[in-house]
Amino acid sequence: MSEVIIRELKKEDLWNGFLTSLDSLKEASGIDKEKADTIFEKINSNPDHIIAVAEMDGKIVGSTTLLIESKFIHNGGLVGHIEDVVVNKEFQGQKIGEKIMNYLIEIAKKRGCYKTILDCTDEIKPFYEKLGFKQVANELRLDNI
Amino acid sequence: MSEVIIRELKKEDLWNGFLTSLDSLKEASGIDKEKADTIFEKINSNPDHIIAVAEMDGKIVGSTTLLIESKFIHNGGLVGHIEDVVVNKEFQGQKIGEKIMNYLIEIAKKRGCYKTILDCTDEIKPFYEKLGFKQVANELRLDNI
Repeated sequence: MSEVIIRELKKEDLWNGFLTSLDSLKEASGIDKEKADTIFEKINSNPDHIIAVAEMDGKIVGSTTLLIESKFIHNGGLVGHIEDVVVNKEFQGQKIGEKIMNYLIEIAKKRGCYKTILDCTDEIKPFYEKLGFKQVANELRLDNI
Repeated sequence: MSEVIIRELKKEDLWNGFLTSLDSLKEASGIDKEKADTIFEKINSNPDHIIAVAEMDGKIVGSTTLLIESKFIHNGGLVGHIEDVVVNKEFQGQKIGEKIMNYLIEIAKKRGCYKTILDCTDEIKPFYEKLGFKQVANELRLDNI
């Protein structure tokens, strides 16, 4: 079995599996190249916006985002927000999602986040519960467009 | 009845009702002054981290945070995250929370967020449903400390 490397996103990953992996979540690889580059530069310049990727045989096969939020409560505490957990459909069932999550949970801990939170549907809940997450509330959404 | 002004947080608000309003959510006003100033400067320098406050008779009586997240999915879409909705206990029941929320929802729309999301418990859900939010999923939490 090929080795999986978990690391932070680099610019050259965008068109080397990263955007096509995101397609397994929501269509992403149809994005304009220049627009994708601009988004990458914006995210990359923000140390509180971290995208971790899974690389296998030189290609990106999955990714997850961690946003670190500074708050005034909790004595100026930090909160980690997990977003867009995805593994390319062809590579699911190999614990790649779990490895990316554990990598980001460690970053959140090292950065001093007092909690890490995420939103998920009922079907996906057991995956996060195995990682130690517990349901505490509801996610609500307002469509703006 | 005194007029309520909804606007963005300024540094001089911190010790003029902002932190004591947050106490109604989680203890915040015990924070070190220098630490609070540092957090303010960090948040204030990030155009995607917006804190709206309600001012009444020259004092801050409530606040809410909007984080704007850049994504690669949704054709490089933006998502608004609502956090820490609070009104000072002494001023609750005057639709101040609703006014702050509507102010931030408008900012999220103007900035082009395709959705605005938030997490809340069952008790608070009707408040957000009145504003147009709908439950779509669950919030899960991992305590890091």
